[in-house]
Amino acid sequence: MESKSRRTVFFVSDGTGITAETLGHSLLAQFPDCEFRQVRAPFVDSLDKALDCARNIREASRRDGQRPLVFSTLVQADTIAALHETEAHFVDLFGTFIGPLELELGVKSTHTVGRFHGIAESEDYKQRIEAINFTLAHDDGISDKNLEDSNVILVGVSRSGKTPTSLYLAMQYGVKAANYPLIPEDFERNKLPGELQRYRSKLFGLTITPDRLSQIRQERRPNSKYASLENCAAELEAAKKMMQREGIPFLDSTARSIEEISAKILQEIRFGKPVY
Amino acid sequence: MESKSRRTVFFVSDGTGITAETLGHSLLAQFPDCEFRQVRAPFVDSLDKALDCARNIREASRRDGQRPLVFSTLVQADTIAALHETEAHFVDLFGTFIGPLELELGVKSTHTVGRFHGIAESEDYKQRIEAINFTLAHDDGISDKNLEDSNVILVGVSRSGKTPTSLYLAMQYGVKAANYPLIPEDFERNKLPGELQRYRSKLFGLTITPDRLSQIRQERRPNSKYASLENCAAELEAAKKMMQREGIPFLDSTARSIEEISAKILQEIRFGKPVY
Repeated sequence: MESKSRRTVFFVSDGTGITAETLGHSLLAQFPDCEFRQVRAPFVDSLDKALDCARNIREASRRDGQRPLVFSTLVQADTIAALHETEAHFVDLFGTFIGPLELELGVKSTHTVGRFHGIAESEDYKQRIEAINFTLAHDDGISDKNLEDSNVILVGVSRSGKTPTSLYLAMQYGVKAANYPLIPEDFERNKLPGELQRYRSKLFGLTITPDRLSQIRQERRPNSKYASLENCAAELEAAKKMMQREGIPFLDSTARSIEEISAKILQEIRFGKPVY
Repeated sequence: MESKSRRTVFFVSDGTGITAETLGHSLLAQFPDCEFRQVRAPFVDSLDKALDCARNIREASRRDGQRPLVFSTLVQADTIAALHETEAHFVDLFGTFIGPLELELGVKSTHTVGRFHGIAESEDYKQRIEAINFTLAHDDGISDKNLEDSNVILVGVSRSGKTPTSLYLAMQYGVKAANYPLIPEDFERNKLPGELQRYRSKLFGLTITPDRLSQIRQERRPNSKYASLENCAAELEAAKKMMQREGIPFLDSTARSIEEISAKILQEIRFGKPVY
């Protein structure tokens, strides 16, 4: 029964489908009470593939007894027409906006299929890959080498969210994000670890509630002192004091996704880029 | 002079701005001859912030002598109105599609600000973080532990693109992607390394042209045998033979972005999920 009441949503693209999926997810999130069955249809870059896709859409329509939703970033007229011949509710991301943009910019769009193709040669892309490699080589304080090349250095107690945030910053924004744990020894010495003192302007702190930290650490090392609520609270308190004393901006990661944390960090730090 | 001829593009959102940026970039990529100056404006979740943003838009308009472009995912009527009062070309992602979707679905949208807020509690999000941790723990063949939990295991010679692709699969799609290097010793023994034989159905290979591989390895270890064109060609040939013999599907990563490679891998492998 449950599957019958769900609509099927297709993300159709001549490329990877990431754009169609991203906007589709954002729009559907505005309808939290509806359940959707999601289908990716990337690389629909020929009429044959579009006709295949149209068949799948019609089949879903019959099966669900409801019109499917289609989020499309197709740019070729014949492939778009093939999908229009289904009865789906069609959200045509490119068709809707490209015409007005052409008028505004006073140039024709290239109607290029597969916008992500060729991206691998772009400077932006190379910067992202370089940032990922940098971030992996500077995860968890494993190396001080070339730390001066970092755009940001995340600090915080173990399991406060530094690693996934660093990787997201690198992958999404091409930001070279090192990260460094603050450990009990640092609090005893009452000093920032390693070379961090030299790069204080690049530091950004993550904190988290003791409850949540204890819960995360329990999964790693059940019933350890490391994971105990008391120890977590003490470490977090010491880290907070250190960050406040050193003038390091920090953010609570508890209820935030890595997307949110990263966007906040980007706002705080300018990275010497012209505009952001 | 150059900066004067560029238009400014604003990505305005009440959340992280990722949706606005993703669609904006895809649309602008259809105009490769135009240069744009890009400005992120995330977390515009109050009228005050929207008025601030509108001021920045007007300033850019004066400075450039051209109407800025605004890609917006704002959902609150008053913030949208504030931006509409600038003369920018306004691409209103939510306004354009939410109304028709409400009619189609027969329910009102929640008009929730900050769709990414609360995401950190969702199952999808937890799965993505878990996948990132898994992928990091299974990078470059460092561990066979829990390899049976992987959704895919990438194989290929050193520097063929396994690590960034694995991380992208984990971060974007919540796919647990291990990766394992194929090294000269494996070719001599003529056997897949480690435990891989047991998980052959999960294997996916990456290959690359000898030229490109040699170039990448030169950056790491200049003038080494490891980086020589001859050695790269020999390793790639041996790896290809091994993958063909073992029936492992593989893909050339040379001119492809990690987005493209990941989307292709997702198409090949079903991961036992209901629909993809």
